[in-house]
Amino acid sequence: MAAVMGDPGLSKLQFAPFSSALDVGFWHELTQKKLNEYRLDEAPKDIKGYYYNGDSAGLPARLTLEFSAFDMNAPTPAHCCPAVGTLYNTNTLEAFKAADKKLLLEQAANEIWESIRSGAALDNPVLLNKFLLLTFADLKKYHFYYWFCSPALCLPESIPLIRGPVGLDQRFSPAQIQALERAYDDLCQTEGVPALPYFLIKYDETMVLVSLLKHYSDFFQGQRTKITVGVYDPCNLAQYPGWPLRNFLVLAAHRWSSSFQSVEVLCFRDRTLQGMRDVTHSIIFEVKLPEMAFSPDCPKAVGWEKNQKGGMGPRMVNLSECMDPKRLAESSVDLNLKLMCWRLVPTLDLDKVVSVKCLLLGAGTLGCNVARTLMGWGVRHITFVDNAKISYSNPVRQPLYEFEDCLVGGKPKALAAADRLQKIFPGVNARGFNMSIPMPGHPVNFSSVTLEQARRDVERLEQLVEGHDVVFLLMDTRESRWLPAVIAASKRKLVINAALGFDTFVVMRHGLKKPKQQGAGDLCPSHPVAPADLLGPSLFANIPGYKLGCYFCNDVVAPGDSTRDRTLDQQCTVSRPGLAMIAGALAVELMVSVLQHPEGGYAIASSSDDRMNEPPTSLGLVPHQIRGFLSRFDNVLPVSLAFDKCTACSSKIWDMSDDETV
Amino acid sequence: MAAVMGDPGLSKLQFAPFSSALDVGFWHELTQKKLNEYRLDEAPKDIKGYYYNGDSAGLPARLTLEFSAFDMNAPTPAHCCPAVGTLYNTNTLEAFKAADKKLLLEQAANEIWESIRSGAALDNPVLLNKFLLLTFADLKKYHFYYWFCSPALCLPESIPLIRGPVGLDQRFSPAQIQALERAYDDLCQTEGVPALPYFLIKYDETMVLVSLLKHYSDFFQGQRTKITVGVYDPCNLAQYPGWPLRNFLVLAAHRWSSSFQSVEVLCFRDRTLQGMRDVTHSIIFEVKLPEMAFSPDCPKAVGWEKNQKGGMGPRMVNLSECMDPKRLAESSVDLNLKLMCWRLVPTLDLDKVVSVKCLLLGAGTLGCNVARTLMGWGVRHITFVDNAKISYSNPVRQPLYEFEDCLVGGKPKALAAADRLQKIFPGVNARGFNMSIPMPGHPVNFSSVTLEQARRDVERLEQLVEGHDVVFLLMDTRESRWLPAVIAASKRKLVINAALGFDTFVVMRHGLKKPKQQGAGDLCPSHPVAPADLLGPSLFANIPGYKLGCYFCNDVVAPGDSTRDRTLDQQCTVSRPGLAMIAGALAVELMVSVLQHPEGGYAIASSSDDRMNEPPTSLGLVPHQIRGFLSRFDNVLPVSLAFDKCTACSSKIWDMSDDETV
Repeated sequence: MAAVMGDPGLSKLQFAPFSSALDVGFWHELTQKKLNEYRLDEAPKDIKGYYYNGDSAGLPARLTLEFSAFDMNAPTPAHCCPAVGTLYNTNTLEAFKAADKKLLLEQAANEIWESIRSGAALDNPVLLNKFLLLTFADLKKYHFYYWFCSPALCLPESIPLIRGPVGLDQRFSPAQIQALERAYDDLCQTEGVPALPYFLIKYDETMVLVSLLKHYSDFFQGQRTKITVGVYDPCNLAQYPGWPLRNFLVLAAHRWSSSFQSVEVLCFRDRTLQGMRDVTHSIIFEVKLPEMAFSPDCPKAVGWEKNQKGGMGPRMVNLSECMDPKRLAESSVDLNLKLMCWRLVPTLDLDKVVSVKCLLLGAGTLGCNVARTLMGWGVRHITFVDNAKISYSNPVRQPLYEFEDCLVGGKPKALAAADRLQKIFPGVNARGFNMSIPMPGHPVNFSSVTLEQARRDVERLEQLVEGHDVVFLLMDTRESRWLPAVIAASKRKLVINAALGFDTFVVMRHGLKKPKQQGAGDLCPSHPVAPADLLGPSLFANIPGYKLGCYFCNDVVAPGDSTRDRTLDQQCTVSRPGLAMIAGALAVELMVSVLQHPEGGYAIASSSDDRMNEPPTSLGLVPHQIRGFLSRFDNVLPVSLAFDKCTACSSKIWDMSDDETV
Repeated sequence: MAAVMGDPGLSKLQFAPFSSALDVGFWHELTQKKLNEYRLDEAPKDIKGYYYNGDSAGLPARLTLEFSAFDMNAPTPAHCCPAVGTLYNTNTLEAFKAADKKLLLEQAANEIWESIRSGAALDNPVLLNKFLLLTFADLKKYHFYYWFCSPALCLPESIPLIRGPVGLDQRFSPAQIQALERAYDDLCQTEGVPALPYFLIKYDETMVLVSLLKHYSDFFQGQRTKITVGVYDPCNLAQYPGWPLRNFLVLAAHRWSSSFQSVEVLCFRDRTLQGMRDVTHSIIFEVKLPEMAFSPDCPKAVGWEKNQKGGMGPRMVNLSECMDPKRLAESSVDLNLKLMCWRLVPTLDLDKVVSVKCLLLGAGTLGCNVARTLMGWGVRHITFVDNAKISYSNPVRQPLYEFEDCLVGGKPKALAAADRLQKIFPGVNARGFNMSIPMPGHPVNFSSVTLEQARRDVERLEQLVEGHDVVFLLMDTRESRWLPAVIAASKRKLVINAALGFDTFVVMRHGLKKPKQQGAGDLCPSHPVAPADLLGPSLFANIPGYKLGCYFCNDVVAPGDSTRDRTLDQQCTVSRPGLAMIAGALAVELMVSVLQHPEGGYAIASSSDDRMNEPPTSLGLVPHQIRGFLSRFDNVLPVSLAFDKCTACSSKIWDMSDDETV
């Protein structure tokens, strides 16, 4: 229940203050604004609330802020009056605490006072219902700190009650009440608003007239010592008017106390009871109008809301508990990403990263680490292909699996990996295909069943490559990379390749061929390769993406079966445990950097020599290859040209594969 | 049931072959030998099996190999005869398949033949029971491929049965049987063996005599056309002798066919029936002794075991399903690590890594990635300290948590992280402490409860540091690293520190102070720092571990509260998602490299300049710091000296903390 302010004693008028009612939708919208629009901007923002006039008895008068609060043109709901406010959203809890509440209140009071003195409030009485909202949104925890203020100017002295308050039906006859209703409704309709916060009233036994404030001089013509005003009252209490009357009384005193001694106030309350309109809980009373005409200085003001404990202090709402956890997870993940754009990399185009569809061929050590890094970048569409089952040695190195996944022969990796991504983040669109990738040198058994299966595998692989934007080659054999490399080259998909030695790795983007059926360079940017310059740093400077080599370009033999006759240590791709994490992370970071480049996969390759130059993207270099040496904690960035007889990416191979199944 | 070889027809003697019985213990021991001893060595190994003589009817004759097979001195169980064999364990399945089975059999047959010709088999009849075992152990999948062979020399023609076979009780009286039992037992006892595979027999109605083969000429003195021999027979069949007789008959034919025309064979079978000794299922028969005296060439041989389908081929046993999954996980994890030692880094001292106890202060992005890499290295003792709860944005970047961990306010990170490690690998000893680390600049509330809590936290932190070997500083504030750094310095624990920027990181080992209460360099190696050499590459060459700086050495101000007044992007340690994986992995790899150095934390720091030099450990460099720049895909290895007024590691600070609570 609302507390009642002012001196005790029935002979003085007291007011029921607003309770702030900040909807979950408001906080949600504030979160969005903060993340996407305000970011680190702490400047005051215009917002809008409303108060309702149809509550049942017992409810406190509320000033409500919803998701619509940030749209100054949003319509006000029926039976509601708008209130305009100012949002002060701070970047830190410390700034929130340190905000000068007294000053903010004084500023708002001054504005109200100016609107009264200038007459602007007569034309637009909404100006009397100003509010302030000081907030700090801790978007890591979904804790929202706030302090609400509805500034009320104080009259120089307390306001003596002359008559009342009494229920309207004790003063008005049913006919008068009906006439009041009709007159009020007509005025609202004429004005095109759902409700009028303040209005003027003239009545006798036969009629009730209402009018806008701005027409006061005509309307009050002929009145003697007393005038009657109406206020659209959100309060339900029989003895007290609500807060909106306060500033209106100051206006009345300032404007009219030189002409009239008292003002009769009708607190218009308008609800539906058992299907019937009922305004009889409206109250009416008469107060002495304080003398304050020509007073130049803004009166002192009050209005900061008490907190739940009844003291002067901010409130905190913890929304982490009342939001849908899945949506909460999504916005929390977004938050971490968006924070990067606020200050560090304002030009970062997150959409290009978040919307990319990634196909991960291999769900082993590299595949798991790549998927984890993609999740960190907010990538939502991740597909795994693998035909292995999870074995007992996997979970300690393959961070999407656990001991339980190894039991009963082991779950298929591709499916288990996709399941795990869902468990980590329900918002991800993860799929797994438990299938093998046909490999040169691994003879297909020419029984019709096996041959048919191989054909289906090729077909499905083609569909999968087609349906994704980036193809990651993360298998543990060279030759299994061949067919996907050919298909991806033919479909002009960005290929990111990662491969491990014992303490060395290579992470590379394959050269991205020029678009099909286009003249040279029609669609892809053409970069003239500078003639070898004796003064230049390297023969491999300024090589555009379409001239870059692929994983197979440095090979002189076609891929064969490298798994045959390998000893255990060779089969396991024995590597230092940290290596796959580093290579997996770099593979994704390389992809992200390439995506940030305006030319994407066609971007000129950065080399080690470019480390001292201005980087081509907001995230830095876009190398062709990163070759890492863990024993020296060193990376080098070689660049190599496509080989025109490459078994995977030369034009002969991909021309063949353009129109037919490979 | 055992199949019966040889021509059909009752008039020819046929033999029941051995069934190989390879116990799980055998495969377990083979795994251990392979991992720790044989590694890539494919040379033949001597192993030992045995066969039992007390089976109930219906069981096939088995040649059993257990865990003891690799110990040539292991005792043979009671009622069993030993058999000696040769293990051919290949490194690849291809080598297994390609092994020349015919040649292996011929070699073994030749050895048997030579032992017959030379008389060695008379002295040591066990030589007649040779076996071969060809294996390939796929230790990734716990699939064991094997092919067993018990080589049997073939007589030039089939062996005509003259009499029998009949049950022993049809030929011997109960008194004779009892005499046989006693004579055999006495001979075994005299020889000190649990059983004799072959023996000579003489009997009439009043007595039974037995003797060793080597005494044949004395023992057979006076025999006419027929001699009697005994064979300790693992077979239960009423019509057929078991395999051990085959080579013995060849010996008999070779040795004695010039003197005798036929041999009576007593297949001695010795079991306990209803508590009573029973040898009556022994069989006796007489065969013509083929003429093969003075034959110089080794007869052809048979003996490769048929597989489960009854064809000639290897068998496979999949032990992943019948081993205790937890032990299986442990040995699988060990495998991956041990493989590193086989060929790549034979000098790697894995024990130093696996046995290290790691304290992870911080279970966030860095803590999770460090723990994962430690698991990959086989570290078994990991303790987390953190006071935060898991929030919705964590799981996509902190790879030990899932969406479910965020619900209902979030689980405490330290506890959830420890739980997750157990789920990944049940063999780990993981603990979590949900506690805060007292920080300078964060005032302790001086109520007695809070002060007491802070005191307890300091005490527990000290105990934790004391109980571990390596302390990882992985928190998200500078100042929280201070107290652990001081405590660890005072206790001379290796400190690995990792900290992230947006796209940069530092990973470093703190300088390790000289041991307490020792003369300078008494225990830690003393490295004379070379005087600054104008020709030398750097002033910072050759700095030993005890002179290296800590995280705070480059600071001129004491650590304060860096969380106060930070905006959201500053609070979240906003970083490129791949960064923590890289830094976490490097932190562990740095620790491992330091542990591999003979001087550990006192090792001279490697710098970028050392990249071209001979590395100090088998794993490479042992830098002081790795500073990474993701935008350039570059790492540098700076070295810095300890600052003698450092707020964390200068002698003043740790002298103070030596004997008292900090």
